Amino acid sequence: MRYELFYWPTIQGRGEFVRLALEDAGADYVDVARLPEGSGGGEAALLRWMDAPAVGHPPFAPPFLKAGRRLIAQTANILLFLGPRLGLAPRDETGALWTHQLQLTITDFVAEIHDAHHPIAGSLYYENQRDEAKRRSATLRRERLPKFLGYFERALADNARGRQRCLVGTATTYVDLSLFQVIEGLRYAFPRTLRRLEASLPLCVALHDRLAERPRIAAYLASTRRIPFNNDGIFRRYPELDV
Amino acid sequence: MRYELFYWPTIQGRGEFVRLALEDAGADYVDVARLPEGSGGGEAALLRWMDAPAVGHPPFAPPFLKAGRRLIAQTANILLFLGPRLGLAPRDETGALWTHQLQLTITDFVAEIHDAHHPIAGSLYYENQRDEAKRRSATLRRERLPKFLGYFERALADNARGRQRCLVGTATTYVDLSLFQVIEGLRYAFPRTLRRLEASLPLCVALHDRLAERPRIAAYLASTRRIPFNNDGIFRRYPELDV
Repeated sequence: MRYELFYWPTIQGRGEFVRLALEDAGADYVDVARLPEGSGGGEAALLRWMDAPAVGHPPFAPPFLKAGRRLIAQTANILLFLGPRLGLAPRDETGALWTHQLQLTITDFVAEIHDAHHPIAGSLYYENQRDEAKRRSATLRRERLPKFLGYFERALADNARGRQRCLVGTATTYVDLSLFQVIEGLRYAFPRTLRRLEASLPLCVALHDRLAERPRIAAYLASTRRIPFNNDGIFRRYPELDV
Repeated sequence: MRYELFYWPTIQGRGEFVRLALEDAGADYVDVARLPEGSGGGEAALLRWMDAPAVGHPPFAPPFLKAGRRLIAQTANILLFLGPRLGLAPRDETGALWTHQLQLTITDFVAEIHDAHHPIAGSLYYENQRDEAKRRSATLRRERLPKFLGYFERALADNARGRQRCLVGTATTYVDLSLFQVIEGLRYAFPRTLRRLEASLPLCVALHDRLAERPRIAAYLASTRRIPFNNDGIFRRYPELDV
């Protein structure tokens, strides 16, 4: 099965959590909007599916995935679908639900990280909400980053008692890849804050480093398929928000 | 199976989406934190499970559900688990994923509604972020409410071509109950705005009204088990945010 991923072509954003799963599994996929418009790509490809009256299950927003005749949206839902197919989720119901629960906590975390630079409206420029962003990011740095990252550190510690180095069970799952991506993004966006926090997050850091060395992930990160971080995505580097 | 729901005892909040599914199905459940502390209830019951070192799959936050030996958190994940067991979700994978996709869009919507009165920090009083809340709620009213509600109206219209009066397939699912709750909440929190918008949302309003008349939901709404809306939950009535 060739999967077709639809996401904004110039940012990592939420689509990156799906890209990482597809890349790690060596899946056959096309990142449709990154194709030239003449080949059916570009942002036009996204809008075509979102506004098409004939689409039975329309997405609210990218990313979405076409898998044969299915059209599936919401990042965590796409990963719920792909997980067992890509060998990146446990097959038993309890394990699948726990993996998904952690992924939904990543979803909440990512929304809070985004809103630190856009606390008033996604439709306004950062410059028009910078004062509010300074207030919100202070809370993010002091309260929310330690709380969320500490939660994942605890989950890793719980699982590590069985000498595992992953969040769930005995093998890498999609939520390990998502936690890797969050740490990558936070190091980009909040380098000072992360340096302070990482000393108390040895298991998160070890997970990150181990995943970065998985052959397909290492190859992906070194390729042009990996879009560099930039200040249009979720993880943005505004030094005034990282004091 | 007797389910045990754990959620803050004095608000509807995110727990209400689970309560509505359990109530509609006539499920055997206990709302644990609403029991007296002497009977193992109160907020202490929540904290006991969240901080217990022996809990294998700890929740990040309430609500969470105990089902036998399983402990499941994240509202949408709880509904994913309960849906087929309560007869409130399709049994085929495509239908289950579509129902869940809509629920995750409700999750996003609810987070935005919450942040309209808490755009800076959940840990600060509303009064300490009122100016920012005025800015953010203006965007919520003008852009986000029409966009989200319009999306659900469209999904209802797509399904209504098959003469259905629910979001998914041919029967009521948990996401219908969640949309009912969102409309209830918005009518409480933003009565002026909703009066303006409802004329363009006939299918959402019809769904709401139909669900309010389902016997078990009607009985629940009239009972003391239904906590009244108040200004500690997600849906809060601040007239200055509804102009």
